[in-house]
Amino acid sequence: MQSISPERAALAARMLDIQPFYVMDILAQARALEAAGRSIIHMEIGEPDAATAAPIIQAGIAALQAGHTHYTPALGLPALRVAIADFYASRYGVNIDPARVVVTSGSSGALLLAMGVLLNPGDQVLLADPGYPCNRHFVRFVEGEAVNIPVTAQTHFQLRAEHIAEHWNARTRAVLVASPANPTGMLLTQPEMQALHAAVSQRGGTLVVDEIYHGLTYGCDAQTALAVSDDVFVINSFSKYFGMTGWRLGWMIVPEDYVPALDRLAQNLFLAAPTLAQHAALAAFQPETIAILEARRAEFAQRRDYLLPALRQLGFDLPLVPEGAFYLYAGCSEFTQDSRHFANAILEQAGVAITPGLDFGNFEPETHVRFAYTTALPKLEQGVERLARFLRAGA
Amino acid sequence: MQSISPERAALAARMLDIQPFYVMDILAQARALEAAGRSIIHMEIGEPDAATAAPIIQAGIAALQAGHTHYTPALGLPALRVAIADFYASRYGVNIDPARVVVTSGSSGALLLAMGVLLNPGDQVLLADPGYPCNRHFVRFVEGEAVNIPVTAQTHFQLRAEHIAEHWNARTRAVLVASPANPTGMLLTQPEMQALHAAVSQRGGTLVVDEIYHGLTYGCDAQTALAVSDDVFVINSFSKYFGMTGWRLGWMIVPEDYVPALDRLAQNLFLAAPTLAQHAALAAFQPETIAILEARRAEFAQRRDYLLPALRQLGFDLPLVPEGAFYLYAGCSEFTQDSRHFANAILEQAGVAITPGLDFGNFEPETHVRFAYTTALPKLEQGVERLARFLRAGA
Repeated sequence: MQSISPERAALAARMLDIQPFYVMDILAQARALEAAGRSIIHMEIGEPDAATAAPIIQAGIAALQAGHTHYTPALGLPALRVAIADFYASRYGVNIDPARVVVTSGSSGALLLAMGVLLNPGDQVLLADPGYPCNRHFVRFVEGEAVNIPVTAQTHFQLRAEHIAEHWNARTRAVLVASPANPTGMLLTQPEMQALHAAVSQRGGTLVVDEIYHGLTYGCDAQTALAVSDDVFVINSFSKYFGMTGWRLGWMIVPEDYVPALDRLAQNLFLAAPTLAQHAALAAFQPETIAILEARRAEFAQRRDYLLPALRQLGFDLPLVPEGAFYLYAGCSEFTQDSRHFANAILEQAGVAITPGLDFGNFEPETHVRFAYTTALPKLEQGVERLARFLRAGA
Repeated sequence: MQSISPERAALAARMLDIQPFYVMDILAQARALEAAGRSIIHMEIGEPDAATAAPIIQAGIAALQAGHTHYTPALGLPALRVAIADFYASRYGVNIDPARVVVTSGSSGALLLAMGVLLNPGDQVLLADPGYPCNRHFVRFVEGEAVNIPVTAQTHFQLRAEHIAEHWNARTRAVLVASPANPTGMLLTQPEMQALHAAVSQRGGTLVVDEIYHGLTYGCDAQTALAVSDDVFVINSFSKYFGMTGWRLGWMIVPEDYVPALDRLAQNLFLAAPTLAQHAALAAFQPETIAILEARRAEFAQRRDYLLPALRQLGFDLPLVPEGAFYLYAGCSEFTQDSRHFANAILEQAGVAITPGLDFGNFEPETHVRFAYTTALPKLEQGVERLARFLRAGA
């Protein structure tokens, strides 16, 4: 046996640009504090707190008992592709050919496939900053270039057609937006989506719309970008509204011309999405499941309705009411110019775990933090009390 | 609603080089013939025919009942990483720090991560031709360059140190070998592995060893490349020996210096491997499971021992005895110079589905076909009878 060479790993250049999530450090620190006996309120975690709904679990058990353990086709179980298409008809009134449904290993798999078929090295993708951190890394992974465009409350923290006009150049290939967005929770309205789509397609580009927080909107329903045009990539997931994070299952609706390329890329990169998850997900659209999910959605709404005014009262800057997801992206310039240090202090001194802005881009991350309301209301109340005490002590 | 634009998809250049598996076409044609009432013997499919072993299924059900549906850490469930490390100690007598175990979404996920951290655009990877078709596509996906090196019976269809010496240049970054290999079923001996490792590491490169068919060797046990050095990437899977294809679970043992980069790349590209599969896989190493898997291995051995002489007798060229996997890569120049047409004719006229050589590279694919013995012995016998009749009729 030879020993490990003492040199550091010889890494591809892309790894210099692909950063870890800071939230993982916060989570690890929080777990370490808990292991040492401390009580921690978790407001950092980006996944629903409830386990997967019982009818989906039951469908998973039935699939296991039936021995459904072999590969499915690369584009997904035909019955699931039909069920997803039907969901667009019933929920959005939009008619989708099941042949355009690509079932993926989480929305992560969908993002990788989409960037893989769209981007040549050096091609640019326009993204909102703040935004979901993986998006720019998927672009970088395939040697594209993510262009982070600062967005403010003025445009509801979303890209608008005017951003496209301003930032488009010969190297721009695509625009990626999320509605509702992580970390801001803000939606694009249909007129805004229409204008975005027109701005992108006029210029010969492709609009990619992340709709993974659809279903988790409060006081309103989001409309899909597919109602605007068939000529978009729409990415969705069973993780958030459907509460199936660990199952690793998502999907993408694509223009039909892209299906053959996505099929062969999915064959090569993934073989197929997890079979068991696909069988279980057939139960996700059933009325009894939807009833459970809608009750959970009502609970998220209640949490948002509590947490938003409570944080405002503490002095956090939240100029808008986020309509969806389960995050509040709060300005904290009242308290700090170093959100990372601030989040660390809150964790260590107050026992509340939150995520500093630096996970979400380069635009004012040091004066923003993200609160996730993925924990029950009494815990959120306790967290707010702890924060209030911490902030009073610091003042 | 706008209609889909009539232009063809604007695809990234890499998609010109990433081909579909021809075996998928064969499978689709075979299914269509079956749907029309024809009897088809399947010798094209690259996955074990048995469903996952009962103890693993039971562990999956228990995990579902316990509500294990949230994300795991990106590198995998700690208990599974320990179990995999323990497996190296018990099966190979090799000591592996669980911190070096990266649990992945199938070996596909492992290959993507490995190529992602190793390759800059233009970097070359040396590969045996014939070989597993996805390998060259993973390299291409991250803008690397796969160098297919023709291998023959003379080197047991494997790369040897002399191939490395001959093909290495300033752009070469890594060498990827598989033992046992798909489609040839041949092993590398430990002295050969040692020489390969020395040849690669002398030149400052990285050796990546695909061991996904370990456990499926007949009359011998394969030794892991980790017994040669810690300074290799070893890729394995729960799909083949452990019979968990549709669960999408694999792993990789890496030099410790690469772990942080692989952690953050896995976070960004996958979040984590499927949780349920990880819990179920904890049962894969239990003695009662291993007993089932060893019985299946004995059955594969029996199939190989029947099929190899039977195909030789029909006139297929199989100069060596493949020690592992569940494939026979047979020369068919006796019958054809167009293996694709030959495979189609065999499917349509004889009702036997096999895979033409073109799925496995550029070296003499038109005079080779792959037989998979992933179907029960009586079916294989029936397949051989049908082939014999077909070949007699053609002669």
